[in-house]
Amino acid sequence: MLEDKNPQRTSLEELGEFGLIDHLTQHFELKQPSSLVGVGDDAAVMDFKDKKVVVSTDMLVEGVHFDLSYMPLKHLGYKSVMVNLSDIYAMNAMATQITISIAVSNRFPLEALEEFYEGVALACKLYNVDLVGGDTTSSNKGMIISVTAIGSAEESKIAYRKGSKPNDLLVVTGDLGGAYLGLQVLEREKEVYKVNPKSQPDLEPYSYLVERQLKPEARKDMVELLEKLEVKPTSMIDISDGLSSEILHLCKHGGVGCNLFEDKIPLDPSVISTCEEFKMDSTMIALGGGEDYELLFTIDQADFPKIKGNPNLTVIGHMTEKSEGVHLITRAETKIPITAQGWNSFKP
Amino acid sequence: MLEDKNPQRTSLEELGEFGLIDHLTQHFELKQPSSLVGVGDDAAVMDFKDKKVVVSTDMLVEGVHFDLSYMPLKHLGYKSVMVNLSDIYAMNAMATQITISIAVSNRFPLEALEEFYEGVALACKLYNVDLVGGDTTSSNKGMIISVTAIGSAEESKIAYRKGSKPNDLLVVTGDLGGAYLGLQVLEREKEVYKVNPKSQPDLEPYSYLVERQLKPEARKDMVELLEKLEVKPTSMIDISDGLSSEILHLCKHGGVGCNLFEDKIPLDPSVISTCEEFKMDSTMIALGGGEDYELLFTIDQADFPKIKGNPNLTVIGHMTEKSEGVHLITRAETKIPITAQGWNSFKP
Repeated sequence: MLEDKNPQRTSLEELGEFGLIDHLTQHFELKQPSSLVGVGDDAAVMDFKDKKVVVSTDMLVEGVHFDLSYMPLKHLGYKSVMVNLSDIYAMNAMATQITISIAVSNRFPLEALEEFYEGVALACKLYNVDLVGGDTTSSNKGMIISVTAIGSAEESKIAYRKGSKPNDLLVVTGDLGGAYLGLQVLEREKEVYKVNPKSQPDLEPYSYLVERQLKPEARKDMVELLEKLEVKPTSMIDISDGLSSEILHLCKHGGVGCNLFEDKIPLDPSVISTCEEFKMDSTMIALGGGEDYELLFTIDQADFPKIKGNPNLTVIGHMTEKSEGVHLITRAETKIPITAQGWNSFKP
Repeated sequence: MLEDKNPQRTSLEELGEFGLIDHLTQHFELKQPSSLVGVGDDAAVMDFKDKKVVVSTDMLVEGVHFDLSYMPLKHLGYKSVMVNLSDIYAMNAMATQITISIAVSNRFPLEALEEFYEGVALACKLYNVDLVGGDTTSSNKGMIISVTAIGSAEESKIAYRKGSKPNDLLVVTGDLGGAYLGLQVLEREKEVYKVNPKSQPDLEPYSYLVERQLKPEARKDMVELLEKLEVKPTSMIDISDGLSSEILHLCKHGGVGCNLFEDKIPLDPSVISTCEEFKMDSTMIALGGGEDYELLFTIDQADFPKIKGNPNLTVIGHMTEKSEGVHLITRAETKIPITAQGWNSFKP
């Protein structure tokens, strides 16, 4: 696929590792006051003054986490950054720097990596983070991406997975299930393409879903909003593996139970209509579908007036005593235990 | 090979990603005062107070950077950490935390990953660094490791690649060429094994070389020694790609030239004898062979009395005006330009 799209190809061998990193990072500037030295020495140097430092890292593997047959490399670069920034925002912290390492087989031309780094650059620009390091090497097969995100926060602002208490409200940003459905749409089109390579997919009705899958946004804006509203979450996590899995994390770390109300779960209209088309249950998709990168957090009830009516924030439940367990309260007012285990990349 | 060695096998699918990370990191404790929160939240949290933060990252790919047919997984875990700590020490900083992400195909049993993490744990213990994060995921083929090392230093202590000036002395720690020769010995034994699987290799005469390759040590001790001797290097780098490549980096960043004296390059007696056996030139091996993870630095001539006679530190040359170029002065007192480009993983 890559071979067909790029008539202009520069082999990676020609550049070598040093030339390659220099070439790919030459247009990246340092803009964060905390970035003292970026790419080009043995290590990057940063100054966070009296703030605490937060660090998170993730690995993305071709064929496991992404499929280059429908994932444009620029989007992949963007998404790789988002996935990691999301973890920093989930601490109620601000992301400031990233490092990116990639391993690619030499079937990838230089132009493909340039496209990937264009996405990285766009993400850095829009989210105001600096690329300060990384590594580029060859792989025997496919592409592997490892991103480390660095951020900072005042100690009193940091929100952990632990910290929620009974009667805290459970709040989610944005809406859920879109990214998973976007993947289903893309997988379906891929199968159609395999049978009939001349078919022209009409993705227009699914544009929101496909964008949620291919070009997710980390919720920096929500961390800023909480700051503005003067709300400090009592606990927080990002939704990478599905709502049920993340709720279980908050309950386990907080030593609490939870009641989640089915009728409160925010769904985009296209999620509802596409679930009908695919004959899927939209609640199950919101609970089990991952990659939405929304923030899930708990707040003290006293803070409710501050968030009330904000279209970006939805109260979907409340925490309980641990002994009450973790339940979904359905529209029919039945109580179903939440037990989902999240996504397991080792399962075939 | 892995299949044969491990009669007891637990498949990774059974545990899933969350269970796996918990299982592998359960015995890791936080010991650094700067580590506030480690594995188990969206991000690790650290407090470096008024020190600057240094971060470096590297990726290691099976079949490119290591060969599991002669690299025990415990050693691989240890070496993966060393490679990254070395970059932190090369800043004249102290390493404090690491994160490790690994992708493995599900042909790897749990016991193999446990062995890998045993090596990581040993490295963390001996070098006093905390494992504070990471990711474990599946790959389609082989094993890929990404390590990010974090450290800290007072700003005035940090040594960069730039900073050397004409007449500064060029100093190297330890001795050179051993790791590369160790690799040659192991590759030779692998070929013998392929032809005759019953042959018993006698690696005893090469034990120093093989250990340099399989279980290198990062020079934390040398950073501590320089502190004790009250020597602040004017520039510093670690030797991962070979002496000539690293000298060129220091010269490029410092805007200087260099005279390197062949007869000063420190070589272990087993490097000299094995070079004779392999009919290789020991100077070329020291110049071009990588992975020694020694430190290469420059000091002001006024600091020479402080390091004089220390068996760990060898003055191998001096910096010059840039216009004089970068040269090896041979034993025969001829001047040869140094042009080596270092290792390029994209070359077949």
